[in-house]
Amino acid sequence: MNKHISDKVINRLTLYHCILTDYIEKQVEYISSKQLASLLKIDDSQVRKDISVLNNSGKSSVGYSVRELRTSIEKNLGFSKNKKAFIIGAGNLGMALAKYDNFQHYGLNILALFDIQKEKIGKTVNNKLILDINKLPNLSSKSNVDIAILTVPRQQAQAMADFLVNANIKYIWNFTPTVLSVPEDVQVWNENLMGNFLQFTYNI
Amino acid sequence: MNKHISDKVINRLTLYHCILTDYIEKQVEYISSKQLASLLKIDDSQVRKDISVLNNSGKSSVGYSVRELRTSIEKNLGFSKNKKAFIIGAGNLGMALAKYDNFQHYGLNILALFDIQKEKIGKTVNNKLILDINKLPNLSSKSNVDIAILTVPRQQAQAMADFLVNANIKYIWNFTPTVLSVPEDVQVWNENLMGNFLQFTYNI
Repeated sequence: MNKHISDKVINRLTLYHCILTDYIEKQVEYISSKQLASLLKIDDSQVRKDISVLNNSGKSSVGYSVRELRTSIEKNLGFSKNKKAFIIGAGNLGMALAKYDNFQHYGLNILALFDIQKEKIGKTVNNKLILDINKLPNLSSKSNVDIAILTVPRQQAQAMADFLVNANIKYIWNFTPTVLSVPEDVQVWNENLMGNFLQFTYNI
Repeated sequence: MNKHISDKVINRLTLYHCILTDYIEKQVEYISSKQLASLLKIDDSQVRKDISVLNNSGKSSVGYSVRELRTSIEKNLGFSKNKKAFIIGAGNLGMALAKYDNFQHYGLNILALFDIQKEKIGKTVNNKLILDINKLPNLSSKSNVDIAILTVPRQQAQAMADFLVNANIKYIWNFTPTVLSVPEDVQVWNENLMGNFLQFTYNI
């Protein structure tokens, strides 16, 4: 992965990947740029341009080979790079993410969930243990985990981020509607749900 | 809302909005573009440029008035425009979204959840009823709801989208990892979680 692929292209490539997965299940062997474009309501020249960054070889007169194109997206976007992570907060959102089996396929390996509520600790979700948050610092260094997926209530988000930073977490995928204050060497990825929603509805 | 505000600017404005909400809770009256910029690790000239689209008047030598800036973001992004929606699927993700009280503040009014599982129907989540999916067509026309938030399992996503389209739903906020095929007059907003994650981790 030496070349740079822009965020917008990565976003579209993962959507093509979803379509290709569907097509494989339906046992369809070939797909054209027009079919991909029409499902996403974009121009097919855009699709061809996106696919051209992949050095994908499976193109024939009947279209792209579904399997080869999918493999080629996975290679280029680093699906096989194992990214170990913890989920912080075993509420509904934490549980939903823990149950999301697709993550594994994208190289995201969720090792455990953490919570502060005694009644949740020791239970499992989708074969992942819910652990006491105080065990995190020890476990993150032992298992070499530096990604945390933050799903705690808004009021606890900053205090929990401070705790995670102290435990050497370097990347926080932030699902809380809070802008976290973290040191320079820590990255926060904001899953800005309401920002997305307002973008969508702005022109309605 | 006549002027055009780009998606990236809308995204940042909602993040400023989160910060301003925190500051109001902490009873801080003024905030500078530098403070906003440093929390988001961006340049403060960017922050000033974003805020300049708002026609915000609350700027003084000590910074922006926190309350006025927040109100001005809300006005420009249409927070007060009431957007009625249904959640389709009362699983963990559907429940998490139903419990997310922030939605109301952004003008997103979730009227009810829908599911096919008999044991869930009739229960309430955060004062919202879980109803039988077969009641949706009637209710959507009665209550004038044209936004559906889709959180069903991937395997059921397309069939459910077809059902929603038949029930005159015009906007689908799609949380499933599926690219939905819908008619021209229906908009799908893909909440592409794995696309976002791969963007974040691409350069790690």
